[in-house]
Amino acid sequence: MSPTHDHIVKSYDSELKRLDGEIQRMGQIAVAQLDAAIDVLQRRDSQAAMRVVANDDAIDALEHEVSHDVLRLLALRQPMARDLREVYAALRISADIERIGDYAANVAKRSMVLNQSAPVSAARGLPALAKLANGLVAEALEAYRLRDADKAMAVRSRDVELDAEYTGLFRELLTYMAEDPRQITACTHLLFAAKNIERIGDHATNIAENTWFLVHGEPPADERQKADLTSQ
Amino acid sequence: MSPTHDHIVKSYDSELKRLDGEIQRMGQIAVAQLDAAIDVLQRRDSQAAMRVVANDDAIDALEHEVSHDVLRLLALRQPMARDLREVYAALRISADIERIGDYAANVAKRSMVLNQSAPVSAARGLPALAKLANGLVAEALEAYRLRDADKAMAVRSRDVELDAEYTGLFRELLTYMAEDPRQITACTHLLFAAKNIERIGDHATNIAENTWFLVHGEPPADERQKADLTSQ
Repeated sequence: MSPTHDHIVKSYDSELKRLDGEIQRMGQIAVAQLDAAIDVLQRRDSQAAMRVVANDDAIDALEHEVSHDVLRLLALRQPMARDLREVYAALRISADIERIGDYAANVAKRSMVLNQSAPVSAARGLPALAKLANGLVAEALEAYRLRDADKAMAVRSRDVELDAEYTGLFRELLTYMAEDPRQITACTHLLFAAKNIERIGDHATNIAENTWFLVHGEPPADERQKADLTSQ
Repeated sequence: MSPTHDHIVKSYDSELKRLDGEIQRMGQIAVAQLDAAIDVLQRRDSQAAMRVVANDDAIDALEHEVSHDVLRLLALRQPMARDLREVYAALRISADIERIGDYAANVAKRSMVLNQSAPVSAARGLPALAKLANGLVAEALEAYRLRDADKAMAVRSRDVELDAEYTGLFRELLTYMAEDPRQITACTHLLFAAKNIERIGDHATNIAENTWFLVHGEPPADERQKADLTSQ
Protein backbone atom coordinates (compact mmCIF):
# COMPACT_ATOMS: atom_id res chain seq x y z
CA MET A 1 0.00 0.00 0.00
CA SER A 2 1.49 3.34 -1.00
CA PRO A 3 1.82 6.05 1.66
CA THR A 4 -0.68 8.15 -0.31
CA HIS A 5 -3.24 5.37 -0.42
CA ASP A 6 -2.67 4.71 3.25
CA HIS A 7 -3.28 8.36 3.94
CA ILE A 8 -6.51 8.35 1.92
CA VAL A 9 -7.73 5.21 3.66
CA LYS A 10 -6.96 6.63 7.10
CA SER A 11 -8.71 9.84 6.28
CA TYR A 12 -11.69 7.95 4.88
CA ASP A 13 -11.90 5.90 8.06
CA SER A 14 -11.78 9.02 10.16
CA GLU A 15 -14.61 10.51 8.11
CA LEU A 16 -16.72 7.39 8.65
CA LYS A 17 -15.92 7.60 12.36
CA ARG A 18 -17.06 11.19 12.36
CA LEU A 19 -20.35 10.13 10.75
CA ASP A 20 -20.70 7.37 13.33
CA GLY A 21 -20.14 9.84 16.13
CA GLU A 22 -22.75 12.23 14.75
CA ILE A 23 -25.34 9.46 14.45
CA GLN A 24 -24.71 8.07 17.92
CA ARG A 25 -24.99 11.60 19.30
CA MET A 26 -28.28 12.08 17.42
CA GLY A 27 -29.52 8.80 18.87
CA GLN A 28 -28.57 9.71 22.44
CA ILE A 29 -30.40 13.03 22.13
CA ALA A 30 -33.48 11.32 20.68
CA VAL A 31 -33.61 8.80 23.54
CA ALA A 32 -33.13 11.61 26.08
CA GLN A 33 -35.86 13.61 24.37
CA LEU A 34 -38.44 10.85 24.77
CA ASP A 35 -37.46 10.44 28.44
CA ALA A 36 -37.82 14.19 28.92
CA ALA A 37 -41.17 14.27 27.10
CA ILE A 38 -42.57 11.59 29.42
CA ASP A 39 -41.12 13.38 32.43
CA VAL A 40 -42.76 16.73 31.57
CA LEU A 41 -46.01 14.93 30.76
CA GLN A 42 -46.03 13.31 34.20
CA ARG A 43 -45.05 16.54 35.99
CA ARG A 44 -47.52 18.59 33.86
CA ASP A 45 -44.78 21.15 33.25
CA SER A 46 -45.61 23.07 30.07
CA GLN A 47 -42.55 25.30 30.33
CA ALA A 48 -40.24 22.29 30.36
CA ALA A 49 -42.31 20.76 27.55
CA MET A 50 -41.58 23.81 25.40
CA ARG A 51 -37.88 23.27 25.99
CA VAL A 52 -38.19 19.63 24.86
CA VAL A 53 -39.93 20.81 21.68
CA ALA A 54 -37.19 23.41 21.08
CA ASN A 55 -34.46 20.82 21.68
CA ASP A 56 -35.63 18.90 18.62
CA ASP A 57 -33.71 21.47 16.57
CA ALA A 58 -30.46 19.92 17.80
CA ILE A 59 -31.43 16.58 16.22
CA ASP A 60 -32.52 18.25 12.98
CA ALA A 61 -29.22 20.15 12.84
CA LEU A 62 -27.28 16.91 13.29
CA GLU A 63 -29.29 15.24 10.52
CA HIS A 64 -28.37 18.08 8.19
CA GLU A 65 -24.73 17.61 9.20
CA VAL A 66 -24.93 13.88 8.43
CA SER A 67 -26.57 14.51 5.03
CA HIS A 68 -23.96 17.13 4.23
CA ASP A 69 -21.09 14.84 5.27
CA VAL A 70 -22.57 11.95 3.28
CA LEU A 71 -22.86 14.04 0.11
CA ARG A 72 -19.29 15.28 0.55
CA LEU A 73 -18.02 11.76 1.19
CA LEU A 74 -19.81 10.43 -1.88
CA ALA A 75 -18.40 13.21 -4.07
CA LEU A 76 -14.82 13.14 -2.79
CA ARG A 77 -14.28 9.48 -1.87
CA GLN A 78 -16.57 7.67 -4.30
CA PRO A 79 -16.91 4.68 -2.00
CA MET A 80 -17.80 1.21 -3.32
CA ALA A 81 -19.41 -1.96 -1.93
CA ARG A 82 -19.35 -2.05 1.88
CA ASP A 83 -18.00 1.51 2.09
CA LEU A 84 -20.90 2.70 -0.02
CA ARG A 85 -23.36 0.79 2.15
CA GLU A 86 -21.79 2.47 5.19
CA VAL A 87 -22.72 5.95 3.98
CA TYR A 88 -26.08 4.75 2.65
CA ALA A 89 -26.93 3.27 6.06
CA ALA A 90 -25.77 6.47 7.76
CA LEU A 91 -28.20 8.45 5.63
CA ARG A 92 -31.12 6.11 6.30
CA ILE A 93 -30.45 5.68 10.01
CA SER A 94 -30.04 9.41 10.60
CA ALA A 95 -33.42 9.96 8.90
CA ASP A 96 -34.98 7.39 11.26
CA ILE A 97 -33.48 9.07 14.32
CA GLU A 98 -34.76 12.42 13.07
CA ARG A 99 -38.27 10.93 12.95
CA ILE A 100 -37.85 9.48 16.46
CA GLY A 101 -36.95 12.97 17.65
CA ASP A 102 -40.06 14.36 15.95
CA TYR A 103 -42.25 11.82 17.72
CA ALA A 104 -40.66 12.61 21.09
CA ALA A 105 -41.25 16.34 20.48
CA ASN A 106 -44.86 15.53 19.55
CA VAL A 107 -45.38 13.77 22.88
CA ALA A 108 -44.08 16.92 24.61
CA LYS A 109 -46.46 19.06 22.50
CA ARG A 110 -49.42 16.86 23.43
CA SER A 111 -48.48 17.16 27.11
CA MET A 112 -48.92 20.93 26.80
CA VAL A 113 -52.44 20.44 25.42
CA LEU A 114 -53.16 17.93 28.22
CA ASN A 115 -52.21 20.55 30.81
CA GLN A 116 -55.14 22.66 29.65
CA SER A 117 -57.56 20.22 31.33
CA ALA A 118 -57.69 18.22 34.56
CA PRO A 119 -55.22 15.33 35.00
CA VAL A 120 -56.43 11.95 33.70
CA SER A 121 -55.35 8.73 35.35
CA ALA A 122 -55.08 7.05 31.95
CA ALA A 123 -51.79 8.90 31.38
CA ARG A 124 -50.03 6.46 33.70
CA GLY A 125 -49.70 3.86 30.92
CA LEU A 126 -47.38 6.00 28.81
CA PRO A 127 -44.11 5.75 30.81
CA ALA A 128 -43.98 1.95 30.47
CA LEU A 129 -44.64 2.23 26.75
CA ALA A 130 -41.92 4.87 26.34
CA LYS A 131 -39.47 2.76 28.35
CA LEU A 132 -40.02 -0.18 26.00
CA ALA A 133 -39.64 2.05 22.94
CA ASN A 134 -36.48 3.70 24.23
CA GLY A 135 -35.05 0.29 25.05
CA LEU A 136 -35.53 -0.76 21.43
CA VAL A 137 -33.96 2.45 20.11
CA ALA A 138 -30.94 2.13 22.41
CA GLU A 139 -30.45 -1.52 21.42
CA ALA A 140 -30.81 -0.75 17.72
CA LEU A 141 -28.23 2.01 18.01
CA GLU A 142 -25.88 -0.32 19.89
CA ALA A 143 -26.31 -3.02 17.21
CA TYR A 144 -25.52 -0.40 14.58
CA ARG A 145 -22.49 0.90 16.52
CA LEU A 146 -21.12 -2.65 16.74
CA ARG A 147 -22.20 -3.46 13.14
CA ASP A 148 -23.79 -6.54 14.71
CA ALA A 149 -26.48 -7.82 12.34
CA ASP A 150 -27.68 -10.60 14.68
CA LYS A 151 -28.09 -8.19 17.57
CA ALA A 152 -30.03 -5.97 15.18
CA MET A 153 -32.42 -8.79 14.32
CA ALA A 154 -33.08 -9.38 18.03
CA VAL A 155 -34.31 -5.78 18.28
CA ARG A 156 -36.59 -6.30 15.32
CA SER A 157 -38.24 -9.32 16.86
CA ARG A 158 -38.87 -7.45 20.13
CA ASP A 159 -40.96 -4.72 18.48
CA VAL A 160 -44.00 -7.03 18.85
CA GLU A 161 -43.80 -6.54 22.64
CA LEU A 162 -44.16 -2.80 22.17
CA ASP A 163 -47.04 -3.31 19.74
CA ALA A 164 -48.85 -5.54 22.26
CA GLU A 165 -48.34 -2.99 25.06
CA TYR A 166 -49.63 -0.26 22.77
CA THR A 167 -52.74 -2.26 21.84
CA GLY A 168 -53.52 -2.76 25.55
CA LEU A 169 -53.17 0.95 26.25
CA PHE A 170 -55.30 1.80 23.19
CA ARG A 171 -58.16 -0.33 24.53
CA GLU A 172 -57.78 1.07 28.04
CA LEU A 173 -58.04 4.63 26.72
CA LEU A 174 -61.19 3.81 24.72
CA THR A 175 -62.75 2.40 27.89
CA TYR A 176 -61.91 5.56 29.86
CA MET A 177 -63.52 7.69 27.18
CA ALA A 178 -66.70 5.62 27.15
CA GLU A 179 -66.94 5.70 30.95
CA ASP A 180 -66.40 9.45 31.26
CA PRO A 181 -67.04 11.50 28.11
CA ARG A 182 -65.49 14.56 29.80
CA GLN A 183 -62.15 12.80 29.37
CA ILE A 184 -62.56 12.32 25.61
CA THR A 185 -60.34 15.21 24.54
CA ALA A 186 -57.55 14.38 26.99
CA CYS A 187 -57.68 10.67 26.16
CA THR A 188 -57.55 11.46 22.43
CA HIS A 189 -54.30 13.35 22.93
CA LEU A 190 -52.98 10.44 25.01
CA LEU A 191 -53.96 8.08 22.18
CA PHE A 192 -51.93 10.10 19.71
CA ALA A 193 -49.02 10.28 22.15
CA ALA A 194 -49.16 6.49 22.56
CA LYS A 195 -49.27 6.06 18.78
CA ASN A 196 -46.20 8.30 18.47
CA ILE A 197 -44.33 6.08 20.91
CA GLU A 198 -45.43 2.92 19.09
CA ARG A 199 -44.11 4.46 15.85
CA ILE A 200 -40.74 5.05 17.54
CA GLY A 201 -40.50 1.27 17.82
CA ASP A 202 -41.03 0.96 14.06
CA HIS A 203 -38.12 3.31 13.48
CA ALA A 204 -35.94 1.27 15.86
CA THR A 205 -36.84 -1.68 13.60
CA ASN A 206 -35.81 0.34 10.54
CA ILE A 207 -32.44 1.08 12.16
CA ALA A 208 -32.04 -2.64 12.81
CA GLU A 209 -32.92 -3.53 9.21
CA ASN A 210 -30.50 -0.96 7.84
CA THR A 211 -27.78 -2.38 10.09
CA TRP A 212 -28.47 -5.84 8.65
CA PHE A 213 -28.30 -4.46 5.11
CA LEU A 214 -25.06 -2.65 5.85
CA VAL A 215 -23.42 -5.87 7.07
CA HIS A 216 -24.91 -8.33 4.58
CA GLY A 217 -25.53 -6.26 1.47
CA GLU A 218 -29.13 -7.40 1.25
CA PRO A 219 -32.30 -6.74 3.24
CA PRO A 220 -33.28 -9.28 5.94
CA ALA A 221 -35.29 -12.06 4.31
CA ASP A 222 -38.24 -12.66 6.61
CA GLU A 223 -40.82 -9.98 7.17
CA ARG A 224 -41.15 -9.36 10.89
CA GLN A 225 -44.29 -10.36 12.74
CA LYS A 226 -46.72 -7.54 13.29
CA ALA A 227 -48.85 -7.87 16.43
CA ASP A 228 -50.61 -4.63 15.50
CA LEU A 229 -52.80 -6.25 12.85
CA THR A 230 -55.97 -4.42 13.79
CA SER A 231 -54.43 -1.05 12.93
CA GLN A 232 -54.94 0.32 16.41
CA MET B 1 -16.16 15.52 -26.23
CA SER B 2 -14.85 12.05 -27.04
CA PRO B 3 -17.28 9.43 -28.35
CA THR B 4 -16.66 7.38 -25.21
CA HIS B 5 -17.42 10.29 -22.89
CA ASP B 6 -20.50 11.07 -24.93
CA HIS B 7 -21.61 7.49 -24.57
CA ILE B 8 -21.10 7.55 -20.79
CA VAL B 9 -23.00 10.83 -20.49
CA LYS B 10 -25.89 9.52 -22.55
CA SER B 11 -26.03 6.34 -20.56
CA TYR B 12 -25.94 8.32 -17.30
CA ASP B 13 -28.82 10.47 -18.50
CA SER B 14 -30.82 7.40 -19.40
CA GLU B 15 -30.20 6.00 -15.93
CA LEU B 16 -31.41 9.22 -14.33
CA LYS B 17 -34.47 9.10 -16.59
CA ARG B 18 -35.11 5.56 -15.47
CA LEU B 19 -34.96 6.71 -11.83
CA ASP B 20 -37.33 9.55 -12.66
CA GLY B 21 -39.76 7.13 -14.29
CA GLU B 22 -39.70 4.82 -11.26
CA ILE B 23 -40.36 7.69 -8.87
CA GLN B 24 -43.21 9.16 -10.92
CA ARG B 25 -44.73 5.69 -11.15
CA MET B 26 -44.41 5.28 -7.37
CA GLY B 27 -46.10 8.64 -6.93
CA GLN B 28 -48.97 7.79 -9.24
CA ILE B 29 -49.60 4.54 -7.38
CA ALA B 30 -49.48 6.34 -4.01
CA VAL B 31 -52.05 8.94 -5.15
CA ALA B 32 -54.26 6.19 -6.58
CA GLN B 33 -53.92 4.24 -3.33
CA LEU B 34 -55.25 7.11 -1.22
CA ASP B 35 -58.15 7.59 -3.65
CA ALA B 36 -58.89 3.87 -3.44
CA ALA B 37 -58.64 3.88 0.37
CA ILE B 38 -61.22 6.68 0.61
CA ASP B 39 -63.42 4.90 -1.92
CA VAL B 40 -63.46 1.61 0.01
CA LEU B 41 -63.99 3.51 3.27
CA GLN B 42 -67.07 5.20 1.82
CA ARG B 43 -68.40 2.00 0.25
CA ARG B 44 -67.60 -0.01 3.43
CA ASP B 45 -66.00 -2.69 1.27
CA SER B 46 -63.54 -4.67 3.40
CA GLN B 47 -62.57 -7.00 0.56
CA ALA B 48 -61.53 -4.10 -1.62
CA ALA B 49 -59.78 -2.56 1.39
CA MET B 50 -57.65 -5.68 1.71
CA ARG B 51 -56.61 -5.28 -1.92
CA VAL B 52 -55.57 -1.67 -1.24
CA VAL B 53 -53.46 -2.85 1.69
CA ALA B 54 -51.88 -5.57 -0.48
CA ASN B 55 -51.18 -3.08 -3.29
CA ASP B 56 -48.81 -1.20 -1.00
CA ASP B 57 -46.25 -3.90 -1.82
CA ALA B 58 -45.97 -2.45 -5.34
CA ILE B 59 -44.79 0.88 -3.88
CA ASP B 60 -42.38 -0.83 -1.49
CA ALA B 61 -40.95 -2.86 -4.39
CA LEU B 62 -40.41 0.30 -6.42
CA GLU B 63 -38.69 1.98 -3.48
CA HIS B 64 -36.29 -0.97 -3.26
CA GLU B 65 -35.67 -0.62 -7.00
CA VAL B 66 -34.90 3.09 -6.61
CA SER B 67 -32.53 2.44 -3.68
CA HIS B 68 -30.83 -0.31 -5.66
CA ASP B 69 -30.47 1.90 -8.76
CA VAL B 70 -29.16 4.78 -6.66
CA LEU B 71 -26.51 2.61 -5.02
CA ARG B 72 -25.46 1.23 -8.41
CA LEU B 73 -25.36 4.71 -9.92
CA LEU B 74 -23.26 6.02 -7.04
CA ALA B 75 -20.82 3.14 -7.32
CA LEU B 76 -20.48 3.06 -11.12
CA ARG B 77 -20.94 6.72 -12.09
CA GLN B 78 -19.62 8.56 -9.06
CA PRO B 79 -21.71 11.64 -9.79
CA MET B 80 -20.76 15.10 -8.53
CA ALA B 81 -22.55 18.38 -7.73
CA ARG B 82 -25.98 18.58 -9.37
CA ASP B 83 -25.77 14.96 -10.60
CA LEU B 84 -25.11 13.84 -7.04
CA ARG B 85 -28.02 15.93 -5.79
CA GLU B 86 -30.20 14.25 -8.43
CA VAL B 87 -29.63 10.79 -6.98
CA TYR B 88 -29.76 12.09 -3.40
CA ALA B 89 -33.15 13.71 -4.10
CA ALA B 90 -34.35 10.51 -5.78
CA LEU B 91 -33.51 8.58 -2.62
CA ARG B 92 -35.23 11.06 -0.31
CA ILE B 93 -38.30 11.55 -2.47
CA SER B 94 -38.82 7.83 -2.98
CA ALA B 95 -38.70 7.39 0.81
CA ASP B 96 -41.38 10.08 1.17
CA ILE B 97 -43.61 8.42 -1.42
CA GLU B 98 -43.14 5.09 0.34
CA ARG B 99 -44.44 6.73 3.55
CA ILE B 100 -47.39 8.25 1.66
CA GLY B 101 -48.24 4.75 0.44
CA ASP B 102 -48.04 3.45 4.03
CA TYR B 103 -50.46 6.12 5.20
CA ALA B 104 -52.89 5.35 2.37
CA ALA B 105 -52.74 1.63 3.26
CA ASN B 106 -53.36 2.57 6.90
CA VAL B 107 -56.53 4.43 5.94
CA ALA B 108 -57.69 1.28 4.13
CA LYS B 109 -56.84 -0.81 7.23
CA ARG B 110 -58.84 1.52 9.46
CA SER B 111 -61.80 1.28 7.09
CA MET B 112 -61.85 -2.49 7.70
CA VAL B 113 -62.05 -1.87 11.45
CA LEU B 114 -64.79 0.73 10.89
CA ASN B 115 -66.85 -1.86 9.01
CA GLN B 116 -67.11 -3.88 12.23
CA SER B 117 -69.54 -1.31 13.65
CA ALA B 118 -72.43 0.80 12.38
CA PRO B 119 -71.68 3.58 9.87
CA VAL B 120 -70.88 6.96 11.42
CA SER B 121 -71.79 10.18 9.66
CA ALA B 122 -68.54 11.76 10.82
CA ALA B 123 -66.73 9.78 8.10
CA ARG B 124 -67.99 12.19 5.47
CA GLY B 125 -65.24 14.72 6.27
CA LEU B 126 -62.44 12.43 5.10
CA PRO B 127 -62.87 12.60 1.28
CA ALA B 128 -62.37 16.39 1.19
CA LEU B 129 -59.27 16.04 3.36
CA ALA B 130 -57.88 13.28 1.13
CA LYS B 131 -58.59 15.33 -2.00
CA LEU B 132 -56.56 18.23 -0.59
CA ALA B 133 -53.71 15.90 0.40
CA ASN B 134 -53.65 14.16 -2.97
CA GLY B 135 -53.66 17.55 -4.70
CA LEU B 136 -50.53 18.50 -2.77
CA VAL B 137 -48.80 15.20 -3.57
CA ALA B 138 -49.62 15.45 -7.30
CA GLU B 139 -48.37 19.05 -7.43
CA ALA B 140 -45.20 18.20 -5.52
CA LEU B 141 -44.50 15.33 -7.92
CA GLU B 142 -45.13 17.62 -10.90
CA ALA B 143 -42.77 20.26 -9.47
CA TYR B 144 -40.17 17.53 -9.02
CA ARG B 145 -40.73 16.17 -12.54
CA LEU B 146 -40.20 19.66 -13.98
CA ARG B 147 -37.35 20.42 -11.53
CA ASP B 148 -39.31 23.60 -10.81
CA ALA B 149 -38.22 24.94 -7.41
CA ASP B 150 -40.73 27.81 -7.36
CA LYS B 151 -43.62 25.51 -8.13
CA ALA B 152 -42.34 23.30 -5.32
CA MET B 153 -42.44 26.19 -2.87
CA ALA B 154 -46.07 26.90 -3.81
CA VAL B 155 -46.94 23.36 -2.72
CA ARG B 156 -45.18 23.90 0.57
CA SER B 157 -47.15 27.04 1.36
CA ARG B 158 -50.45 25.26 0.63
CA ASP B 159 -49.93 22.59 3.28
CA VAL B 160 -51.44 25.04 5.82
CA GLU B 161 -54.81 24.63 4.07
CA LEU B 162 -54.70 20.91 4.70
CA ASP B 163 -53.66 21.48 8.31
CA ALA B 164 -56.62 23.84 8.85
CA GLU B 165 -59.05 21.35 7.29
CA TYR B 166 -57.62 18.60 9.48
CA THR B 167 -58.00 20.71 12.64
CA GLY B 168 -61.66 21.34 11.79
CA LEU B 169 -62.32 17.63 11.28
CA PHE B 170 -60.46 16.78 14.50
CA ARG B 171 -62.77 19.08 16.49
CA GLU B 172 -65.86 17.74 14.73
CA LEU B 173 -64.91 14.17 15.60
CA LEU B 174 -64.37 15.06 19.26
CA THR B 175 -67.84 16.62 19.33
CA TYR B 176 -69.41 13.48 17.83
CA MET B 177 -67.72 11.33 20.47
CA ALA B 178 -68.94 13.53 23.32
CA GLU B 179 -72.51 13.56 21.95
CA ASP B 180 -72.70 9.81 21.44
CA PRO B 181 -70.19 7.69 23.39
CA ARG B 182 -71.21 4.63 21.36
CA GLN B 183 -69.35 6.23 18.45
CA ILE B 184 -66.09 6.63 20.37
CA THR B 185 -64.31 3.62 18.87
CA ALA B 186 -65.34 4.41 15.29
CA CYS B 187 -64.49 8.10 15.66
CA THR B 188 -61.09 7.21 17.12
CA HIS B 189 -60.27 5.21 14.00
CA LEU B 190 -61.48 8.12 11.87
CA LEU B 191 -59.23 10.45 13.89
CA PHE B 192 -56.22 8.26 13.11
CA ALA B 193 -57.24 8.03 9.45
CA ALA B 194 -57.52 11.84 9.32
CA LYS B 195 -54.12 12.18 10.98
CA ASN B 196 -52.64 9.80 8.37
CA ILE B 197 -53.99 12.02 5.60
CA GLU B 198 -52.67 15.16 7.29
CA ARG B 199 -49.24 13.49 7.48
CA ILE B 200 -49.38 12.81 3.73
CA GLY B 201 -49.40 16.58 3.29
CA ASP B 202 -46.20 16.81 5.34
CA HIS B 203 -44.54 14.33 3.00
CA ALA B 204 -45.72 16.35 -0.03
CA THR B 205 -43.92 19.25 1.65
CA ASN B 206 -40.80 17.12 2.04
CA ILE B 207 -40.89 16.28 -1.68
CA ALA B 208 -41.17 20.01 -2.42
CA GLU B 209 -38.23 20.82 -0.14
CA ASN B 210 -36.08 18.12 -1.70
CA THR B 211 -36.93 19.50 -5.15
CA TRP B 212 -35.78 22.93 -4.01
CA PHE B 213 -32.55 21.46 -2.64
CA LEU B 214 -31.95 19.53 -5.86
CA VAL B 215 -32.25 22.70 -7.94
CA HIS B 216 -30.49 25.18 -5.64
CA GLY B 217 -28.01 23.04 -3.72
CA GLU B 218 -29.26 24.33 -0.37
CA PRO B 219 -32.42 23.86 1.70
CA PRO B 220 -35.16 26.50 1.38
CA ALA B 221 -34.39 29.34 3.79
CA ASP B 222 -37.65 30.11 5.54
CA GLU B 223 -39.35 27.55 7.73
CA ARG B 224 -42.88 27.06 6.49
CA GLN B 225 -45.83 28.25 8.57
CA LYS B 226 -47.46 25.55 10.60
CA ALA B 227 -51.18 26.04 11.24
CA ASP B 228 -51.18 22.85 13.27
CA LEU B 229 -49.64 24.47 16.36
CA THR B 230 -51.90 22.78 18.87
CA SER B 231 -50.61 19.33 17.90
CA GLN B 232 -54.04 18.06 16.98
